[in-house]
Amino acid sequence: MTGLAQTANPGSGRTVISVDAMGGDRGPAAVVAGISHSAKINPDIAFILHGPADELAKLVARKRILDGRVEIRDASDVVSMEDKPREVIRSKTTSMWSALESLRSGEAAGVVSCGNTGALMMLSVVRLRKILGVDRPAIAVLWPSRAPQGFNIMLDAGADISADEHDLLQYALMGASYARNGMDLERPRVGLLNVGTEEHKGRTELKLAHDLIARNAKNANYDFVGFVEGNDLPADKADVIVTDGFTGNVALKTGEGTAGLIGSLLKEAFRFSPLSRLAALLAYTSLNRLNKRIDPRRVNGGVFLGLNGTVVKSHGSSDATGVSAAVKLAFKLAQSGFSEKLAARVASAVSLPQDADSTNE
Amino acid sequence: MTGLAQTANPGSGRTVISVDAMGGDRGPAAVVAGISHSAKINPDIAFILHGPADELAKLVARKRILDGRVEIRDASDVVSMEDKPREVIRSKTTSMWSALESLRSGEAAGVVSCGNTGALMMLSVVRLRKILGVDRPAIAVLWPSRAPQGFNIMLDAGADISADEHDLLQYALMGASYARNGMDLERPRVGLLNVGTEEHKGRTELKLAHDLIARNAKNANYDFVGFVEGNDLPADKADVIVTDGFTGNVALKTGEGTAGLIGSLLKEAFRFSPLSRLAALLAYTSLNRLNKRIDPRRVNGGVFLGLNGTVVKSHGSSDATGVSAAVKLAFKLAQSGFSEKLAARVASAVSLPQDADSTNE
Repeated sequence: MTGLAQTANPGSGRTVISVDAMGGDRGPAAVVAGISHSAKINPDIAFILHGPADELAKLVARKRILDGRVEIRDASDVVSMEDKPREVIRSKTTSMWSALESLRSGEAAGVVSCGNTGALMMLSVVRLRKILGVDRPAIAVLWPSRAPQGFNIMLDAGADISADEHDLLQYALMGASYARNGMDLERPRVGLLNVGTEEHKGRTELKLAHDLIARNAKNANYDFVGFVEGNDLPADKADVIVTDGFTGNVALKTGEGTAGLIGSLLKEAFRFSPLSRLAALLAYTSLNRLNKRIDPRRVNGGVFLGLNGTVVKSHGSSDATGVSAAVKLAFKLAQSGFSEKLAARVASAVSLPQDADSTNE
Repeated sequence: MTGLAQTANPGSGRTVISVDAMGGDRGPAAVVAGISHSAKINPDIAFILHGPADELAKLVARKRILDGRVEIRDASDVVSMEDKPREVIRSKTTSMWSALESLRSGEAAGVVSCGNTGALMMLSVVRLRKILGVDRPAIAVLWPSRAPQGFNIMLDAGADISADEHDLLQYALMGASYARNGMDLERPRVGLLNVGTEEHKGRTELKLAHDLIARNAKNANYDFVGFVEGNDLPADKADVIVTDGFTGNVALKTGEGTAGLIGSLLKEAFRFSPLSRLAALLAYTSLNRLNKRIDPRRVNGGVFLGLNGTVVKSHGSSDATGVSAAVKLAFKLAQSGFSEKLAARVASAVSLPQDADSTNE
């Protein structure tokens, strides 16, 4: 066990992030490399690391920068990608359970896990509980975009497969709160994903949600830009794009798949001839800049919204860069007091859907 | 009027495609340039062109290749992008109406229009009628992919905002038929879009559709690969991807938006420095090849499935290349007798959903 006293002690002044070292496709070595990278660039961060103590201790010992900044919590079991969420919530011996427990007890200010999304969400709901006024927690992801901040927020990316108009309003409130605390946008623009931008179009719950979200804009301090379409996800039109988890998940994976296809065709194009290989060399810096801009590892981290505590889901295949990006996000949200602000925001709006007259309170 | 006798006359041996010259963002000049391009590369094609006769005659007269291969049908009104579908179906003086009428009467073997999608679909349903066994017609689009044929088919891309399990089965049957006749795939692979590939996941209608589509695979001569996800749209996993029109439309526009963002960032990257500008020159041929592969203009053409007749919706902003691609698609489908084959296929499967015992008929 390394550095327990320094990190768990609030007097150290460091923000403690709990990291589930297990469950990712690349194993705990990638996770330890990721937190080591974070520790290097951010002196104000410390970690509680959850997993098999012996294995983790060896990995941590190799990274000088982690000296005194990591506490290891032994957890013998791992939640696998195949485990059913219903079984996961019964097992107290997993690294995932242990990580969430340290958040629940107040020892850590945020959790990062590369594990099974469905299991992590269900366990988070059971252990952390939903905040008042939220029926369906959501997963918010960052989407590379033409907006000045370089990213838009989309939610729900797949926590639930459906959402009614009240859920969609909550997503709008939570997404706007995330944009304020995670991206420093004082008055974020909120859009509602649909198949057309005309107000008469789309499913019934979307028309109802359109009215609810519009009515709450002033109170909740966001601009409602109305309906947006799939091509607006990477555009400079809305900073927060609200949709149900089924549509959001399909959109997210479609975007990833499209970017992946173009990326691999681009690589093929540059390998095609001696001339194009030379071109790739000459364009290296510029292409690298482009790559950074759209690299999914750098926008890694689906944030669970609507729970008592900040949980960041890192991609299952995250490498050190991806884990480090997720840790950075958890740190930023923890420091801004995001979780408490979001709860206050949703609580203040919770009576609005039922009571149209209270919008100017 | 140019060339009436030659084109409307079946004895000419040419396949006649009816083209709505109006309603696209670039006006009739782009449409005439497009059919002129098609005429150049395909000697077996002739056109009926619908719109204001005087204006069209002038445009057609400028293209020598169209001599004797275009009949102009005067239609004074244009369906605009703002027109409500319900109003459009009452007006018999539009170029869209005129184009569909020539298909209905058997003068043309297919229709191409760049006009308002909702109006075109509603008018097509009213004038051409749905084929037996189809409740909801669908729009099928081509998706650039890693599959050997270079494209996958996705439907519904937005004809309707919802679909139950029986609609989804019909989409599978129609999509497979399209793949056979439009892409020469004898036994296409069909996938059902969902948020996970496990059979227990997703909405109820998807689980029911999973069973129905699996049960019909042998009879309808396709391979069912089960659930697929958004990232499989451009993959080499399913040739036909089935989903409801809401999800399909969001996915399509998300893919377009993502490709657009990467394309413009790539252009910026190549303009960034003298070195990168030189690189762009050197890589010109390779990048051009990539561009052709994913250029949306070359995969232009949403095919309306489930109607008596072949209607191809060209993108509203189609230029000559886009219009020509849509014409090529309409020609190919007309020549293969696609519309009749599809009707036969759906009719033979129409009793199956109600009667599980008939699957081995």
